[in-house]
Amino acid sequence: MPHVTFLPLGKSIQVAPGTSLLDAAKLAGVALAAECGGKGTCGGCLVLVESGRAGGDFADFLPGEAVRAGYALACRAVAGGEDLVIRLSVEPGAAPESAAGQFASGRARQVLPVSELSPLVTMLALDVAAPRPMDGLGDFERLSRALAAATGAARVDCPLCILQTLPQTLRRTGHAPACAVHLHEGVADIVALGELPPRALGLAVDIGTTSVAVELIDLKTAAVLAHDAGYNEQTRRGADIIGRIGYAARPGGLAELRELALRTIHRLLANCLGRIGADPEAVLAASLSGNTTMTHLALGIDPECIRLDPYTPAVLAPGALTAGAIGLAIHPLAPAFFAPAVGSYLGGDILSGLLLTPLAGNAPEPRLFIDIGTNGEAVLGGEDYLFGCACSAGPAFEGGGLSRGMRAQAGAIEAVSLDPQTFEPDLAVIGGGKPLGICGSGAIDAVAGLFRAGLLDASGRLAARPDLPRIAPDRPGGRKSRFILAQPDVTADGGELALTEPDIENIIRAKAAIYSGCQVLLDQAGLAFADLAEVIVAGGFGHYLSIEDAIAIGLLPDLPREKFRFIGNASLAGSSLTLVSARHRELQAELAARLTYLDLSLVPGFMDAYTAALFLPHTERERFPSVK
Amino acid sequence: MPHVTFLPLGKSIQVAPGTSLLDAAKLAGVALAAECGGKGTCGGCLVLVESGRAGGDFADFLPGEAVRAGYALACRAVAGGEDLVIRLSVEPGAAPESAAGQFASGRARQVLPVSELSPLVTMLALDVAAPRPMDGLGDFERLSRALAAATGAARVDCPLCILQTLPQTLRRTGHAPACAVHLHEGVADIVALGELPPRALGLAVDIGTTSVAVELIDLKTAAVLAHDAGYNEQTRRGADIIGRIGYAARPGGLAELRELALRTIHRLLANCLGRIGADPEAVLAASLSGNTTMTHLALGIDPECIRLDPYTPAVLAPGALTAGAIGLAIHPLAPAFFAPAVGSYLGGDILSGLLLTPLAGNAPEPRLFIDIGTNGEAVLGGEDYLFGCACSAGPAFEGGGLSRGMRAQAGAIEAVSLDPQTFEPDLAVIGGGKPLGICGSGAIDAVAGLFRAGLLDASGRLAARPDLPRIAPDRPGGRKSRFILAQPDVTADGGELALTEPDIENIIRAKAAIYSGCQVLLDQAGLAFADLAEVIVAGGFGHYLSIEDAIAIGLLPDLPREKFRFIGNASLAGSSLTLVSARHRELQAELAARLTYLDLSLVPGFMDAYTAALFLPHTERERFPSVK
Repeated sequence: MPHVTFLPLGKSIQVAPGTSLLDAAKLAGVALAAECGGKGTCGGCLVLVESGRAGGDFADFLPGEAVRAGYALACRAVAGGEDLVIRLSVEPGAAPESAAGQFASGRARQVLPVSELSPLVTMLALDVAAPRPMDGLGDFERLSRALAAATGAARVDCPLCILQTLPQTLRRTGHAPACAVHLHEGVADIVALGELPPRALGLAVDIGTTSVAVELIDLKTAAVLAHDAGYNEQTRRGADIIGRIGYAARPGGLAELRELALRTIHRLLANCLGRIGADPEAVLAASLSGNTTMTHLALGIDPECIRLDPYTPAVLAPGALTAGAIGLAIHPLAPAFFAPAVGSYLGGDILSGLLLTPLAGNAPEPRLFIDIGTNGEAVLGGEDYLFGCACSAGPAFEGGGLSRGMRAQAGAIEAVSLDPQTFEPDLAVIGGGKPLGICGSGAIDAVAGLFRAGLLDASGRLAARPDLPRIAPDRPGGRKSRFILAQPDVTADGGELALTEPDIENIIRAKAAIYSGCQVLLDQAGLAFADLAEVIVAGGFGHYLSIEDAIAIGLLPDLPREKFRFIGNASLAGSSLTLVSARHRELQAELAARLTYLDLSLVPGFMDAYTAALFLPHTERERFPSVK
Repeated sequence: MPHVTFLPLGKSIQVAPGTSLLDAAKLAGVALAAECGGKGTCGGCLVLVESGRAGGDFADFLPGEAVRAGYALACRAVAGGEDLVIRLSVEPGAAPESAAGQFASGRARQVLPVSELSPLVTMLALDVAAPRPMDGLGDFERLSRALAAATGAARVDCPLCILQTLPQTLRRTGHAPACAVHLHEGVADIVALGELPPRALGLAVDIGTTSVAVELIDLKTAAVLAHDAGYNEQTRRGADIIGRIGYAARPGGLAELRELALRTIHRLLANCLGRIGADPEAVLAASLSGNTTMTHLALGIDPECIRLDPYTPAVLAPGALTAGAIGLAIHPLAPAFFAPAVGSYLGGDILSGLLLTPLAGNAPEPRLFIDIGTNGEAVLGGEDYLFGCACSAGPAFEGGGLSRGMRAQAGAIEAVSLDPQTFEPDLAVIGGGKPLGICGSGAIDAVAGLFRAGLLDASGRLAARPDLPRIAPDRPGGRKSRFILAQPDVTADGGELALTEPDIENIIRAKAAIYSGCQVLLDQAGLAFADLAEVIVAGGFGHYLSIEDAIAIGLLPDLPREKFRFIGNASLAGSSLTLVSARHRELQAELAARLTYLDLSLVPGFMDAYTAALFLPHTERERFPSVK
């Protein structure tokens, strides 16, 4: 039976010939972001075959050039007779999130089949009656009739700027204007009329506390045309939600945070537009998801009451506002739809993410959805229940709060493996150059590796090993230690790159918050982790998540690895879905109404569960039998 | 039986004791603007008793101070045993339109009884539930529930600027905020929330081609608080609709006309606000009526197609737009409601005016409604029909197109009577000072007087009377003549004030357009003037209209005088009604749907009728048996 080895993690597994590379990865404890579930359409499981020859029909789903260069889709590629070496991180020099979208540009990912499209803004070719003498109708009234007939809308709203030039528009187009229209609650809001841009674009945005990600979607085909992600510029004004709310309370603070959120989105949007050579005015709709505080800040809404008992947001469901009204620099009349929140700490990002999971469909067996981010959330759902909670993980898994932490982008250490003998670390750096910092997946890897190697104890203290120069005091004379991952001479900025005990404490606190949150959620439903049919993990880790390492540190429960599914940035993917699908917008509203928010701070057992989880992997070792 | 003499017209009539002064005026051929129909509430028939003593209960309807100064309401004052001299024009030094509103400030006119109020914007005292832990609601969601419960609205729309400070607003007001809300089609649009201005004001506007009039209304009591009127500043850019549309087609012309319309409204509004010491932000709603072109220009909508076959407006019913969106300087979120039009030349001004007439109520007998303005319109209605047409009168009745014409404001000659022997004119000047020009009612009076005196023939030529120095050539050696009303030494500007033959031609053309328009309208319905139960006349003439003189020149048909009713500026009064009453807004929409527009230029007989009317009083003298 052939061996399949996965780089940069160095994990190897023996599989039967004919096993798909995606399944092989799962068996090796690696979850590739694969939204489409193996249909070959999302591009999330794109890998590079570095050695050996994979079989299967993957070549049908990729441009020939990509196949010749050795790329494969793990879901459609199978192991044959020979050993394979597979690189999971496939896009040198760019953020891993954009790998699939950019690489497969010859065959862009489609959010939904065209037959299921009902975008936030619909493009119509109207046939308006020509005016006749004494017909008792104005241009607008004839346009309204045509629009009502085409859409079934009971009322048509036409912005003044379109009305002002309506006579010329109708006559210039021979009374057959193209029309971009936002349909909602029986009303047709005209967004644009006349000659529309050649490609009508939609913008999907995930506004995370630490990271912001955007996608440009073709509204007529649902194809993802471009993708970008980066730091939320607000991070300079507070690392987490509470810090941001505090900053917003300062004079001018709220306005500044709003401006920074918009600036972040505009920067990423400009990158995407530049890549496809389009204009901001061609973006006719936007769908945004964020946690409740991020949504408030982006809209300039005072978030103060979110942090004050009884933790009340100003608004749960802002619905669709016009881009011009909120200062979003796309077509000013474009509707900007905000995903609804369920509570102050269970926001629209989760409601968007849920759309990608069977929890949105009343699946009978219990399932857990975990979104790992600065504001971590978990939702437990089954046939007739849906509970959710927030776990204040802090930014460690997005590289925040670590002395050399950074987002999963070029220069970040994304994987670490320790030599079993020498404990010398082998670092995998995104983009392949010298390391500049360490991202969430690298940190999970490093902590898991150090723990497995016996260099880190269950409480997160590094071993006293004078024989190992890589373990040194955190600062001269200090009582805390650090593990040196890279000496100054091999880093990108000439500074030492180490993981310190305070860094490790942050990681342990973050993983404890998420694990204990999930545990309490299950307790409330009278379930144990073992009852779960599936655990769906989302987060901005990049292209893949090492489930094995996440279990090793006690972030994820110790369940059979095949029960895990990693779906990448689900908030962004859900935003793209609500951008192009009315069915998903309705489903999202239903989910928001069904989902019961559980405030962990009010659950008696939570603090005990959290404290017990502040060990590697857990105080109750029996919870993690597979961790040695 | 006592005589009642009406100044400044000098008309006298003998009446039975107990006859109301309003009825006496009618018998003398003078129609006072009396919207309320004799209830003593509108103040339109305010007069000054200069000699003699009137009976009746009029003192109950006026401030004591006014009664002591000799003022009376003609509808509630009756002739007693002695002769009376009554002055119709009662407000020295101010525009007559503002007489009633200003004088009776101790007892402001009420547009509607409070019990019938349902203003465009409703003031509510809300009781919003306080937040509870995990209640699953945001501030907006709790506000929405309270608003939906209070109004029955299916949906609540909250502007972002209100949402941004919603948490503070709710907590500052103890979750009991005042709320100004615009209800329409099941949606509640929040206009203002929190502490509202002490007086919530509404603005009613009549945008006429030559004149603009505004009223400030208290939205809680429907009381008229202030009134003002003045020239439409657009008149510099074209005297009539066609001139304006032409100007709008120039580069920058449309934007300039829009700006001028807004500037006119803002100037009049500032006067009104200054008088009552209120702020523009306190104006929470506006209702505007204008002919179709004026509405287009005020909104910056290209009016070009109005003058091009098949004469199609861009929009008939713009509905309610926000003040901020249209640049109206009141509360930026205030809805600005535009009365619907029926066609390019039958506009919202007529649809507003109709609300003051029995034509709005399917009255069984045929009635004619005539609005005399630069864009004159007539509507004929009975139990199951409603026909309307436009008569391009030109601006003569508003003082436009006359060599010394002016609006009915201080300095305008409003009445002229000729000495039967010497033909010396006795001039009544609004405000009592030296004359500066002549307004519509003065011009009608002067033409009627000259015609009766035999100094003007039926074709509008002045008699050759070398013995009368007041009749002189229009210019040295010219073939046209003029009648000198005031020599330079007695005018306000030191210039001679005359009525020229070209002036008289303009007046004849204007009256012919209106009379023939009405005639054709009746022809279409198979009716004659004699079949009419009532003729309701509207127009910005000022306080009263001399029906006798209007018939003498052939402007109005020769019917029993009691069949006429003058209702002043009906477009403005109708705007005030739609401002405060949902019932009237609905009624107006129904009227717009019912009213059939007749394009006179397409009616075969119209030009003949018009040509026949180009004589004093008419080519067919039998149409005017009472005119000597």
